[in-house]
Amino acid sequence: MISFCQFGAGRIGAIHAGNIARHPGARLAAIVDVDRPAAESLASRHAAVVRTQASALADPAIDAVVIASSTNTHADLVEAAARAGKAIFCEKPLDLDRRRAEACLAVVAECGVPLMVGFNRRFDPHFARLEGQLRDGRIGRVELLSITSRDPSPPPIAYVRVSGGLFRDMMIHDFDMARWLLGEEPVEIFAAASVLTDPAIGDAADVDSAVVTLRTGSGALCQISNSRRAVYGYDQRIEILGSKGALRADNVLLSTVAFAGAEGIVSDKPLPFFLERYAEAYRLEIDHFVDTLTRSTPPAPGGSDGVRALVLADAALQSVQTGRAIAL
Amino acid sequence: MISFCQFGAGRIGAIHAGNIARHPGARLAAIVDVDRPAAESLASRHAAVVRTQASALADPAIDAVVIASSTNTHADLVEAAARAGKAIFCEKPLDLDRRRAEACLAVVAECGVPLMVGFNRRFDPHFARLEGQLRDGRIGRVELLSITSRDPSPPPIAYVRVSGGLFRDMMIHDFDMARWLLGEEPVEIFAAASVLTDPAIGDAADVDSAVVTLRTGSGALCQISNSRRAVYGYDQRIEILGSKGALRADNVLLSTVAFAGAEGIVSDKPLPFFLERYAEAYRLEIDHFVDTLTRSTPPAPGGSDGVRALVLADAALQSVQTGRAIAL
Amino acid sequence: MISFCQFGAGRIGAIHAGNIARHPGARLAAIVDVDRPAAESLASRHAAVVRTQASALADPAIDAVVIASSTNTHADLVEAAARAGKAIFCEKPLDLDRRRAEACLAVVAECGVPLMVGFNRRFDPHFARLEGQLRDGRIGRVELLSITSRDPSPPPIAYVRVSGGLFRDMMIHDFDMARWLLGEEPVEIFAAASVLTDPAIGDAADVDSAVVTLRTGSGALCQISNSRRAVYGYDQRIEILGSKGALRADNVLLSTVAFAGAEGIVSDKPLPFFLERYAEAYRLEIDHFVDTLTRSTPPAPGGSDGVRALVLADAALQSVQTGRAIAL
Amino acid sequence: MISFCQFGAGRIGAIHAGNIARHPGARLAAIVDVDRPAAESLASRHAAVVRTQASALADPAIDAVVIASSTNTHADLVEAAARAGKAIFCEKPLDLDRRRAEACLAVVAECGVPLMVGFNRRFDPHFARLEGQLRDGRIGRVELLSITSRDPSPPPIAYVRVSGGLFRDMMIHDFDMARWLLGEEPVEIFAAASVLTDPAIGDAADVDSAVVTLRTGSGALCQISNSRRAVYGYDQRIEILGSKGALRADNVLLSTVAFAGAEGIVSDKPLPFFLERYAEAYRLEIDHFVDTLTRSTPPAPGGSDGVRALVLADAALQSVQTGRAIAL
Repeated sequence: MISFCQFGAGRIGAIHAGNIARHPGARLAAIVDVDRPAAESLASRHAAVVRTQASALADPAIDAVVIASSTNTHADLVEAAARAGKAIFCEKPLDLDRRRAEACLAVVAECGVPLMVGFNRRFDPHFARLEGQLRDGRIGRVELLSITSRDPSPPPIAYVRVSGGLFRDMMIHDFDMARWLLGEEPVEIFAAASVLTDPAIGDAADVDSAVVTLRTGSGALCQISNSRRAVYGYDQRIEILGSKGALRADNVLLSTVAFAGAEGIVSDKPLPFFLERYAEAYRLEIDHFVDTLTRSTPPAPGGSDGVRALVLADAALQSVQTGRAIAL
Repeated sequence: MISFCQFGAGRIGAIHAGNIARHPGARLAAIVDVDRPAAESLASRHAAVVRTQASALADPAIDAVVIASSTNTHADLVEAAARAGKAIFCEKPLDLDRRRAEACLAVVAECGVPLMVGFNRRFDPHFARLEGQLRDGRIGRVELLSITSRDPSPPPIAYVRVSGGLFRDMMIHDFDMARWLLGEEPVEIFAAASVLTDPAIGDAADVDSAVVTLRTGSGALCQISNSRRAVYGYDQRIEILGSKGALRADNVLLSTVAFAGAEGIVSDKPLPFFLERYAEAYRLEIDHFVDTLTRSTPPAPGGSDGVRALVLADAALQSVQTGRAIAL
Repeated sequence: MISFCQFGAGRIGAIHAGNIARHPGARLAAIVDVDRPAAESLASRHAAVVRTQASALADPAIDAVVIASSTNTHADLVEAAARAGKAIFCEKPLDLDRRRAEACLAVVAECGVPLMVGFNRRFDPHFARLEGQLRDGRIGRVELLSITSRDPSPPPIAYVRVSGGLFRDMMIHDFDMARWLLGEEPVEIFAAASVLTDPAIGDAADVDSAVVTLRTGSGALCQISNSRRAVYGYDQRIEILGSKGALRADNVLLSTVAFAGAEGIVSDKPLPFFLERYAEAYRLEIDHFVDTLTRSTPPAPGGSDGVRALVLADAALQSVQTGRAIAL
Repeated sequence: MISFCQFGAGRIGAIHAGNIARHPGARLAAIVDVDRPAAESLASRHAAVVRTQASALADPAIDAVVIASSTNTHADLVEAAARAGKAIFCEKPLDLDRRRAEACLAVVAECGVPLMVGFNRRFDPHFARLEGQLRDGRIGRVELLSITSRDPSPPPIAYVRVSGGLFRDMMIHDFDMARWLLGEEPVEIFAAASVLTDPAIGDAADVDSAVVTLRTGSGALCQISNSRRAVYGYDQRIEILGSKGALRADNVLLSTVAFAGAEGIVSDKPLPFFLERYAEAYRLEIDHFVDTLTRSTPPAPGGSDGVRALVLADAALQSVQTGRAIAL
């Protein structure tokens, strides 16, 4: 039985807490959040105790931590937890600054604790099935990968300002998926981006629409397409052309119901946003983390996956600023 | 907080037990099963206590029962629970014999306890969404209803022998769906049936393939198609033509992944069988039962729904035997 | 080069004329129609000559006739053409009266001329592909066949009155498809029907909605569903469950374009009606007829197929009137 | 009635010849081809006459020419036909060399004859329907355009060598589609390309896999993906995200038949290659050309469309060679 302390009692924190509490091999022992009422509400729901960071990390009965607090606290918490000898599950990103993230990983390495980064999409059953068939060789060698990722609507401008920008906040998931599915590291990246949905996003020095091209050492090509707005809902698709065929994972729709009327045949929209679309993925990534702790195997994706996705995000931004492909 | 005793610790029992245990407004207090090890294993999983029928029903701390034991025990248990003043959730069917089922309902009525019958498909999110759009008038008046229901493979012959036959065991779900969606009672039924998958099914005096036509008082028509074998998996579809359009609910597939190769485009199969396909429906029917108990409203489908589906099953059998449409 | 005389210059006549004229092995020599301007307009479009029935049938240069005039003229024309030694392609039905149709076939047999009946759906590329895979054994033995056939909107009441009724006018196509796909003759039929779209159809002693069950000697079952109204367009689908899998042929849509918006994902409707849906089938049935004449092989479907579909239509009507299954 | 001379009696020539011959407002009068037997065979099929270039262009009875001969003859033929005062339909490309193409357009402009370039995909009913809905404002402003275009298998190396390379030979169609759908000119292009299917393509100084990013003045982004090999067939898809929704045109499949078996649900593959996929587009572009000649309106796409697509192809190549985005 792995005993958890969770940092962060917000929206994602509540998801992780529920998944830990439900896990037969895990126990949600403590909640830490500066927002005391939120911490108490979440703790009471799962019979956990609200504690301070210091007390929780000092408690030898706590085996592992889940870090789902605000982004700017991640790196410090990872280091503190590592120094306390706790196994760490950290929501992406480790930090918006690559050097800080790398420094953080150095501490983790030094302390020898397991670290998993919350790239939950790898655990989505649809994408995992696609990846399984890819690894089984069903389509041969990967040649062209295409990732489409669109939010239903832009986040509040206040969030945009602290988000690290579209590449570090949103496309970072697609960078991780690209690395995972390509099976090799990109050696070159080109990005183009625009502000199309709301000029305020541009005023906040960010973009809302972006496309990226990746090329790997073996010549495989990848296209990523992001938008902060798709009025039909959360659009999450992957498609891979290989030497022996193609695989695609399409959107998960609200239901299989379709209406046929004078205007056409109307199917349901995709699941509205990430909490619904990736509910199962959130559950399965915690299952994986608990499982690796139980079996003393390293969890994946790990810290270096977190840093490499960040490197791609930084390079994408540099490409937009210079209008050139960036060698990696 | 509703306190439950569950009868039956088999496959369906385990599903219901899990759903009760997970419900914030319910508590799984006791398990009763003649198979003591099964009862203990299930009880230990949910911190419940193994009890005898007599002791559980005599305990005033038990508010409600879930009856998921073998079919031939349903009616007796319903009556005993009713007499003990417990709210009752009973797996379908109440009994394979209509008169016995009716007698049972008389006792329930006399005791004034709530009774819900486990026609779980009404709670499937896809079918519920279809029904919601139907009730909202999206397709106008119902004209032609079509229900396709096919099992992946026939049950063991031992089960066939005690099942009550395809109409009472399998198509009874479709009869309930038909009544629910037609919004009025059928006035006529015609059935045709064959043994096509395994002669042993015929030797057991049952059929494995059957089609039924229903007609309602207003002239709406319904076709049901059942087979005990579909090698591509559990096939569960509904389609309604109305005066202003049509609605359909298609199969739920294993994933959205598709492979495109030299032989064509291969999509995943439907979810394998009822435990997977109706997992959510099992959960939502318990939610509904707990909810109606909490709010003191009558649960649905109720006992009369159980009997009416049985009446249709009996009439279908009579139609097969006589080669005539049966007036209801 | 087969030289054709075509009877009937109406809507279907124009289709056949165009397909004959376009065929490299055929020549459209003559058009016969009591509506002289229609005949002349069609003849001039294809460099054919308007003639009288007598003169065309007496002309030894005419090898074959296409009969696409009004239904009540079919049987007389078939007999006259047969006596003149012409190969005959006759639009369905040979006659609305089965005895008249049989008498007509006796003359054809006596004269030894080839006769093809225009059950065009057998030539639809989608249905033909389905049938090809069925014959190749892809799904093993046929167990359950389901045919859905719905018109976009009811015909004018004037047409309803002379149509012979839904079973002889509309479902006759589905009866032919059922016989073709079942691969054996039905031994029993049950039908139920209603007037749901327009009371005037009932006043004309017809129905607009009907469902039929067929059973074959080997126990295979077939369900047919007809409606005169589907607001989303012409609905033409077939589905077969076999011992080793299932085959379905879905509707052909106007285009592959889909719109994703706030209300859902909107695909195009099916092709509007039979002229669009079966344009290719009309072409391919003429190709088949010309081909069989060129190679001196018998065309199919032939006269007996026409009669057998009529027998099923008559029996369906009798079933509706008696409320019983009819043995065939 | 427009009288045509067609240059080129090869595969595409035969398509155009058939479409001219079938057109009620057009007449296929002459065929010119250095391959005399091919010319005669095609001429005899359509009752046309085989002529020399000089004689055909000198004949005032010839109103228009279709140029479907080998690429290296296009520019000379366009100029000769223009000087002879003929209306010109020229297969893409005008020439592989942009300057030569521009010189050619100058002659056409000087002679004042209509010139249409054979970007047939604009006439595909599916893409035309998508474009119609786009122009009608159904999805608002174009934000992200995605074009997928994959051949079933690479062309012979001999063809690769004279093709002008993937960008000028294959992606040129996608460049035209992008310009057409974006509704404004791209201002920047980035391309990445690889040899993944056959090293011989690399030896011939070409690539077989390429992805391109376009950006327009207003910030709309476009991704194009090309491969010379997709084992599941000819893959031709377009997808547009706009401010108010998305539109997509999916592949046209061989049939609507699907097989459900133990391995999954198998749908048919896309139509095999461009002759099948764009049969209707070839017909409709000739219809458009004849129609504009008849009504004395300018045909589209015209010569400048041909040149602009070539400019994009050249810039794509330059981008691959320099690893930089190219301003246009």
